[in-house]
Amino acid sequence: MTDNELASLLTKVEALIDTLCTGEPGSLASIVRNHFSAGGSRVRARIALQAGSALGLSQTICVALASGCELLHNASLVHDDLQDRDGMRRNAPSMWLAHGENIAICAGDLMLSSAYAALAQAGPKAASMITHVHLRVAHVISGQCDDLRLGASCDDPETYEQIAAAKSGPLLALPLELALIAAGREPLLGAASRAATLFAIAYQMLDDLGDADRDAANGSLNAVAVYAAKGITNPRRAVREAAVARLEAFEQTAAELPAGLAHSLVARAAPIRLALGLQPETA
Amino acid sequence: MTDNELASLLTKVEALIDTLCTGEPGSLASIVRNHFSAGGSRVRARIALQAGSALGLSQTICVALASGCELLHNASLVHDDLQDRDGMRRNAPSMWLAHGENIAICAGDLMLSSAYAALAQAGPKAASMITHVHLRVAHVISGQCDDLRLGASCDDPETYEQIAAAKSGPLLALPLELALIAAGREPLLGAASRAATLFAIAYQMLDDLGDADRDAANGSLNAVAVYAAKGITNPRRAVREAAVARLEAFEQTAAELPAGLAHSLVARAAPIRLALGLQPETA
Repeated sequence: MTDNELASLLTKVEALIDTLCTGEPGSLASIVRNHFSAGGSRVRARIALQAGSALGLSQTICVALASGCELLHNASLVHDDLQDRDGMRRNAPSMWLAHGENIAICAGDLMLSSAYAALAQAGPKAASMITHVHLRVAHVISGQCDDLRLGASCDDPETYEQIAAAKSGPLLALPLELALIAAGREPLLGAASRAATLFAIAYQMLDDLGDADRDAANGSLNAVAVYAAKGITNPRRAVREAAVARLEAFEQTAAELPAGLAHSLVARAAPIRLALGLQPETA
Repeated sequence: MTDNELASLLTKVEALIDTLCTGEPGSLASIVRNHFSAGGSRVRARIALQAGSALGLSQTICVALASGCELLHNASLVHDDLQDRDGMRRNAPSMWLAHGENIAICAGDLMLSSAYAALAQAGPKAASMITHVHLRVAHVISGQCDDLRLGASCDDPETYEQIAAAKSGPLLALPLELALIAAGREPLLGAASRAATLFAIAYQMLDDLGDADRDAANGSLNAVAVYAAKGITNPRRAVREAAVARLEAFEQTAAELPAGLAHSLVARAAPIRLALGLQPETA
């Protein structure tokens, strides 16, 4: 897929998201419209469009599943920010802080509902895709509950990885998985899920290395604190080494997938590898 | 449909709701399971099953759409209770009060997602049904936002009715509408929606007559306060007369629908009529 083709499809994704979220006029519609026009890198939409293109799916199906994945991700951001009391998102006050908790609940609900409406446009396999999406959404919600419950009290790296995997793995895997379902390539679902989960864990560990001090102050779950609580002498180095190992496992798994399927995710692994290599050891 | 057939299908609805909401083990699963086992009259599931039976739909489709409607309703209860700070539900502390705000957000999200997964099992028209459900859900969310914004400051009976219609009409109409879509009877969607909306307004007005003092104390939207703010001398009587008029319009509209379609809703109109006739005038 050329950059021009990708840009053209991304425009259609924005249009479908807008149609589904703002069909009902009112104050919520303009708040949600502002949320989407205020930024976001549309990583999940790009992954879906590249994967769909690699598998030869129609543009309509690619746009439907890319929009669905992006809507799910944004629904989770809006509700997670409220639950975690994160006050900033995309360099601006997050939705609950800017518009109140009730609007944030409504906006997340609207995005979640819109995601399923987008997927209903994904052609003859739409029902299978929706069934699959619900399994993944249920997994993410369960991971978020565990994260909220455990918070900084977790002292087991394995539990940490399970939570990190449950929180962001499923929504990152979905663009690949849905493209595979639409193309009738279900036997590859396991490898796609493993690849995305490994990527998600590596990404989360890198994020935690940068946020270790802030998370410690907030009492939020952070890999560095988990490794430290486990008694590991240099927890930052241990987290970095674990992240590098997950990233390498991701790259191996992605290589087993059909050519181009995980192109977008593999491209995003390079700067993570660089950041992990350059991460200064301050502990 | 006999009472035994209805009871048998309701058991299948409970089983499908349980499968979809509690597939992911953990604390949230048991909280959601307790929510559904703690009661609820399953009005929307009954309406869907009766309507589906009247239109000759298969048991699988009837159960799928009944479960979807019931899940949507419960998702809205859990999030609305949190937003409205209603502390009691089904004679017990509501979910946010019993388990915290974050669990209530997660539980409502899980139920909303599960609703779409249920509808994905509703046969060849599932995608059309899901598209339709999203329109209605977006309408309900918009109504909830307006309600939260206006609260007790509303002094226009017409605006009040629009909010009441938007808040509960769509989710009450859905069981009828989805049965019609599944049966290919889309031309009747408008009449089904009008009937359910009129019923919802009458029901809300009756509810408001009972809750007038409490809502006035809480600053919640209530028809009696709206009519009083408008300068109507006997607002309770005026609300009761308006409710009777909406109920009669409902009965006329329901009579235009195919035999048995609105059976469950018509049966529920009788006690409302009785309650409206017996409502003491205390103002």
